[in-house]
Amino acid sequence: MAQKLGSQTYLLDQQVYVLAGAAIVGKKEGDGPLARYFDDIIDDEYAGEKTFEAAESRILRDTYFKVLEKSGKAATDINFVLSGDLLNQCTAASYAFRDADVPYFGLFGACSTMSEALILGSLLIDSGAADNVVCAASSHFCSAERQFRFPLEYGSQRTPTSQWTVTGAGAVILGTEGQGPRITCVTPGKILDEGIKDANNMGAAMAPAAADTILAHLKDTGRSCDDYDLILTGDLGSFGSTMLRELLKRNNIDLKDKHNDCGTMIFDLEKQDVVCGGSGCGCSASVFSTYILDQFSQGLLKRILFVATGALLSPTRTQQGESIPGIAHAVCVEA
Amino acid sequence: MAQKLGSQTYLLDQQVYVLAGAAIVGKKEGDGPLARYFDDIIDDEYAGEKTFEAAESRILRDTYFKVLEKSGKAATDINFVLSGDLLNQCTAASYAFRDADVPYFGLFGACSTMSEALILGSLLIDSGAADNVVCAASSHFCSAERQFRFPLEYGSQRTPTSQWTVTGAGAVILGTEGQGPRITCVTPGKILDEGIKDANNMGAAMAPAAADTILAHLKDTGRSCDDYDLILTGDLGSFGSTMLRELLKRNNIDLKDKHNDCGTMIFDLEKQDVVCGGSGCGCSASVFSTYILDQFSQGLLKRILFVATGALLSPTRTQQGESIPGIAHAVCVEA
Repeated sequence: MAQKLGSQTYLLDQQVYVLAGAAIVGKKEGDGPLARYFDDIIDDEYAGEKTFEAAESRILRDTYFKVLEKSGKAATDINFVLSGDLLNQCTAASYAFRDADVPYFGLFGACSTMSEALILGSLLIDSGAADNVVCAASSHFCSAERQFRFPLEYGSQRTPTSQWTVTGAGAVILGTEGQGPRITCVTPGKILDEGIKDANNMGAAMAPAAADTILAHLKDTGRSCDDYDLILTGDLGSFGSTMLRELLKRNNIDLKDKHNDCGTMIFDLEKQDVVCGGSGCGCSASVFSTYILDQFSQGLLKRILFVATGALLSPTRTQQGESIPGIAHAVCVEA
Repeated sequence: MAQKLGSQTYLLDQQVYVLAGAAIVGKKEGDGPLARYFDDIIDDEYAGEKTFEAAESRILRDTYFKVLEKSGKAATDINFVLSGDLLNQCTAASYAFRDADVPYFGLFGACSTMSEALILGSLLIDSGAADNVVCAASSHFCSAERQFRFPLEYGSQRTPTSQWTVTGAGAVILGTEGQGPRITCVTPGKILDEGIKDANNMGAAMAPAAADTILAHLKDTGRSCDDYDLILTGDLGSFGSTMLRELLKRNNIDLKDKHNDCGTMIFDLEKQDVVCGGSGCGCSASVFSTYILDQFSQGLLKRILFVATGALLSPTRTQQGESIPGIAHAVCVEA
C-alpha cells in the first residue's frame, strides 16, 4: 500500500520494475547524439502513411509492439495501456491503440504525459490491480507544428526561445516481476500559470511547474539534490533549464551538476538548428525509455528524479489572449 | 488489494465511497426533465466570461468547488483531481484547475472521461495512495460545436443521427470514509473501431465499444443484466442505444428494461429538438453526479453499471477519410 509523504509524494510499497523500454524516432533525432540508443530511426516523415497524423500513430503503435517484443511479454499480459500525445483529441494514441485489444486509458498532460503515465501506472501496480502496464507517449514535428503554430509550407522563422518538437515515441513496460530499475516514489504535480503568453516560449511556461514539483518532492522526502545522480526534466530546453535553475536558487536549492534536460540531450544544440532544444511528449518519452534505461543497466545511474514537464498550451486560448498553464510530474527511479 | 476477475475486470478490496456529487449545467439542460437535480443552472452561455472556452472552464471550476462544499472536504483533503473534457488540449480542465493548488491528472477519453476518472480514482484509493479523489468532466455546446463541426453562426442543419452536446460539468468525490454508494468493481474498456465515418453519428461509433465492455464485464463477473437495477450508458443517444441493444442481442444478452442512457435522460427528446439526445463529457458526468446519486440516496437504486462511452473523434482524421474509434469504461456502483 502506497504511503503518503508530506503534501504530495507517494512512496510505493510493492516492487515496481521498469521491465523494458523502446523508442522509435525520426531522421533528425537519428542525427542527434542519442541515435545509437533508439530502436529504430524512420527516415520518411510519413512513416509509410499518407498523413503526418497517421505517421505519428504508426510510430507509437510500432513502439508499443517493440517494447512488448523486448520485454518478452504477450499483449495478453498487459493489464492497461496508459498513453497520450499532443494532438487534438490525443489522435495519435487513439488511433495507435484501436483494435490493439488492450484496455486503454487516454491521458492528456502535454509533454508531461510520460511521467503522468509512469505515476498512474506504478500506483496501479502498487494497488495490486495490475501486473504489467505499458506507459507510452509520442509527438511528431510535422503534426505538432501545423496544429500549434503554422503550416510547414509557410516556412515561418523560429524565435530565440522556440524549441523543436521531437518526432518519436517512447514506451516502457512496468511490472511486478523481473529486472530493471524500480519506481520507488512519485510526486504528481499541480497546474501553475505564471502568465507566459508566448506560444514560442514553452520552456518559460513549464519551468515554474517543474520548480514547484521538484521543491515539493525534496520537501516531502527530506532529500536534497545530492541524493540524486540526475534530476532529469522533460523538455524545458536551454532557456527553460536556466529559468528552472534560477527559480530553484531563489528557494535555496542549487541543482549544481545534477540537472539535465531531455530536450537539450536529444539534439546537438550547436549543430542541429533546434534553437533551445527538443520538445514534445515523444522527447522525454524516447530519452527515458532508451538512453536513461541503458545508463541504469550499465550501472552509471543509481537514482534519478524524472520530471516530465507539460505546457498545457491551447492555441484557441492563447489567441484569446490567455497565458499558458504548465504542469510537471516527478518519478523517482532507482537501480 | 484489487483482484482481477477474468480478462479485464477488477474487484476493489477497499471501501470506495462516492461521498458527494455536483453538477452545474446550461439553460437548455435546465429546461430538461432532470433540472431539479442540478446544483445550478447557468442561463448565460458565456457564464460571465468572454469566450465559450473560458465559460466551460468556469463551469467546471465552479462544479469542483461546489462538490468540495457539499462533501464538507477542504481542498487540502483532496489527493488528486482526475479530469478532462472534449476541447483540444483538454483546455477546459487545464484552465479550470490552474492555480487550484491540487495535484492533477489530465485525462482524454472523450465522452467516456467520467468513467475513466472513476476507474482510475477508485483504483488509486484502493491502492491506499489516496484518501479522497475528485473525478470531474465537462462539455459545452458552443465550444464543442465550433471545434468539432461548424461555427454556430453558420446555422448548419442537424442530421437524423446527430446529438446535442450538453453544456455542463459533473464532479464527484470518492473517499475511503463516509457515506454514499460504493464503487465495487470496474471494467476498463478497449478502443474499437467498426468503420463509422459520419461525425454526426457518434452513437454508432460508440455502441460497439459499449457492447464490448458490457459483455466483458458480465463475462468476467459471471453476472447477468438481472443482477443490475440499471445499466446506464453515457451518451449513446436513441440511435446508439438501439444499436447497443441489437449488438448485445447478437451475443445473447437481452437488456430488457434495464438500460437507460444519460443522453436520452437529460433532454426531453420529443420537445427539446436535440434529435438523438445529449452528448459530451458533461452529459454522463452531470447525470451521474446528481440524479443517479439521488436515486441511490432514496433507495431506488441498489446496483448499477455505469458505462460512459467515448467517440474518439478527430476532425483532422475524419477529414482525412478515417473512421471514428470508440471506447467505453464500466463502473459498478452499489448501495
